[in-house]
Amino acid sequence: MIKANNPKTQSWLDVPEGSDFPIQNIPFGIFKAKRQSPRVCTRIGDHVIDLAKVNDLGYFADLEIPKAVFRNDFLNDFMALGKTKTRAVRDRISELFNKRSRKWNAREMSEHILYDIEEVEMLLPIEVRDYTDFYSSMEHAKNVGAMFRDPKNALLPNWKHLPVGYHGRASSIVISGTPIHRPKGQSKPKDATKPVFGPSKLLDFELEMAFVVGKSTELGETVSTAQAEDYIFGMVLFNDWSARDIQAWEYVPLGPFLGKSFASTISPWVVTLDAMDPFRVKGPKQSPKVLSYLEYEGEKNYDLNLSVEIQPEEGKSKTVCKSNFKYMYWNMCQQLAHHTINGCNLNVGDMCASGTISGKNKNSFGSMLEITWRGANPVSMPDGSERKFINDGDTVILKGWCEKNGVRIGFGEASGKVLPAK
Amino acid sequence: MIKANNPKTQSWLDVPEGSDFPIQNIPFGIFKAKRQSPRVCTRIGDHVIDLAKVNDLGYFADLEIPKAVFRNDFLNDFMALGKTKTRAVRDRISELFNKRSRKWNAREMSEHILYDIEEVEMLLPIEVRDYTDFYSSMEHAKNVGAMFRDPKNALLPNWKHLPVGYHGRASSIVISGTPIHRPKGQSKPKDATKPVFGPSKLLDFELEMAFVVGKSTELGETVSTAQAEDYIFGMVLFNDWSARDIQAWEYVPLGPFLGKSFASTISPWVVTLDAMDPFRVKGPKQSPKVLSYLEYEGEKNYDLNLSVEIQPEEGKSKTVCKSNFKYMYWNMCQQLAHHTINGCNLNVGDMCASGTISGKNKNSFGSMLEITWRGANPVSMPDGSERKFINDGDTVILKGWCEKNGVRIGFGEASGKVLPAK
Repeated sequence: MIKANNPKTQSWLDVPEGSDFPIQNIPFGIFKAKRQSPRVCTRIGDHVIDLAKVNDLGYFADLEIPKAVFRNDFLNDFMALGKTKTRAVRDRISELFNKRSRKWNAREMSEHILYDIEEVEMLLPIEVRDYTDFYSSMEHAKNVGAMFRDPKNALLPNWKHLPVGYHGRASSIVISGTPIHRPKGQSKPKDATKPVFGPSKLLDFELEMAFVVGKSTELGETVSTAQAEDYIFGMVLFNDWSARDIQAWEYVPLGPFLGKSFASTISPWVVTLDAMDPFRVKGPKQSPKVLSYLEYEGEKNYDLNLSVEIQPEEGKSKTVCKSNFKYMYWNMCQQLAHHTINGCNLNVGDMCASGTISGKNKNSFGSMLEITWRGANPVSMPDGSERKFINDGDTVILKGWCEKNGVRIGFGEASGKVLPAK
Repeated sequence: MIKANNPKTQSWLDVPEGSDFPIQNIPFGIFKAKRQSPRVCTRIGDHVIDLAKVNDLGYFADLEIPKAVFRNDFLNDFMALGKTKTRAVRDRISELFNKRSRKWNAREMSEHILYDIEEVEMLLPIEVRDYTDFYSSMEHAKNVGAMFRDPKNALLPNWKHLPVGYHGRASSIVISGTPIHRPKGQSKPKDATKPVFGPSKLLDFELEMAFVVGKSTELGETVSTAQAEDYIFGMVLFNDWSARDIQAWEYVPLGPFLGKSFASTISPWVVTLDAMDPFRVKGPKQSPKVLSYLEYEGEKNYDLNLSVEIQPEEGKSKTVCKSNFKYMYWNMCQQLAHHTINGCNLNVGDMCASGTISGKNKNSFGSMLEITWRGANPVSMPDGSERKFINDGDTVILKGWCEKNGVRIGFGEASGKVLPAK
């Protein structure tokens, strides 16, 4: 059997140079073509492949997957098949679209299996059940701690002992391309005695990655760091939009609420953990030693390049951040082991975001809050304007890609344009 | 047409004295009888009424409700019909089971429409989408602030300006009767330099009420305090189980996570806001004046008696708390207006809990943390033992009921037994 990750494999479908989607990627998504219902798909180059049609043609027949799994508004039922089956589907796709494949005949090719990415609409791929946001980049936690608390004790006492996380709002997770209205709310200007109401003045992005849970647990069950990868189906880019002024006023003592719940933007393609396997790297040394349930073996970080661009309504865009997912102090397996150590149950479709991914250098900081240091050092845009935070009309574009030995596994983008407050 | 709330109405079904479920209540739930699939039901006295069967007999025919709405694992589809239809169903049930009703013939009565509450299993009535927990009892917030911060400045600066809330875990909301395993996790003993791992030593209940959202909104939409009741289908009792030691160590700076996500217990019957209508009362005066989007008109609090009992594995139970929902500083309409003011979208099935409902007196405090003042004043049990927090083997039982002019609208109970850590 052909394994999807073989770096030498080439597809008979054309793949533009530098594409995020060579035949080694085979991510999953949900698309809608004109006059058709939503369906599960994958992508090679700029070709969107209708997997419902591939299944109709009998190519997955031996896997015995119900038709409804592919004719579906979401990937949840597909993920729930389990990794043995979803891996087999990915390997099969690799085989079918392999340059050496001779499987396709004229009749089959006349079926409408392939679409150009430009002619379809990509939909939110996951029916998100519970959404959790972690806070696992040490550089980010230190930056925020230094700004708002004490530069000498930037990390709170618990930070190196557990992956701090909190529950987020699932309903407002939207697909890349969805415009975001600037949120309104309460904030308290410095030195004011009372809060004021109005559109947020400090709208920010947060550069994050999120993993999608593909396997459920029962209440009371725990998932060890060694088992965790079996529960992680894949990943997406995640922009955790944040209204800093609303957040600052509301968040004590129970955490962020309306400062974040107005929207989060994800990329449309769920890249499997399998596709990311060749890009594993060691994580940073954790000191002090973690409690035993958080210990892990092997390489659990990923060398995944990340960038953030701001595209004004007119004029050139500017890349304001270049970061990397490998900087994370706490890895996904530790996050999931921690999340379930109290018996909290997982559902297929749960989403866990990393927290803002900042590196050591200023140009690797994952939010405007950090990049401009609360507005003290504005970013210069190509048109001569400045940005302390995000303006109305700006589009924020997150990108992510792994690259090694000539193979690039990318995530496409998670983009969102900011519209004025309603 | 007969309106369900008429206090003079009596049912031809027998209703035991003091029952929470006279014909004026007509709550909704999901039940499972032997060898049958889950169905939507209501309850009069100790009779569970199969609404799928009532619908089959044509009694709701003019309302044109699809069969699948009643043959369903959850109430979500029923609630999504909208209040015009769900109110009509409630009024129709009142009519059908009215003592003066002559609608039922022998053939119909031979159908298996009625079950004794003891012969069926009540299931989780709501597929909970997002779950939000507020913090809206001033007495509770003051007690916690006094204990953990400063008795002289017990309330944080934002507390009287907005209903503080945070996102909670939806997956672990369970139906009354589900046993709860004591959670394990990290905590940091006072004066220790490092955290330790083990079963929580400070397991607590929190007496709360929760409302269920029955109408969705689009992202960017807001719901005013005047519109809010149209979005609130009904209410349940809510025990927000809390592991105080886990919570204390983890919660800075992003709020409660594993200290609460291991379980929350709700009562099986969703009592409609309509049924609670006769029990409206004025809320406490809010000073300072709230921002205009939080202003409201009319009586938005409810005179709803609440109690908490601890039932040890052997021996007599003890009522440790008698409180009332009318004490809430922030009402549900304000909570919902605040929740959506930033454009956060609602889904049918969202659940919003009140936060711990404490009154002014010690015997009205809604958690062991407050009742025993962090363990300083233990509760004496009838068997001579003491409780600082909840022991393994204890069952915690929440009850709630409105009562006026001889009519009692009750919630039944939300109970959960604590089992040892797994």
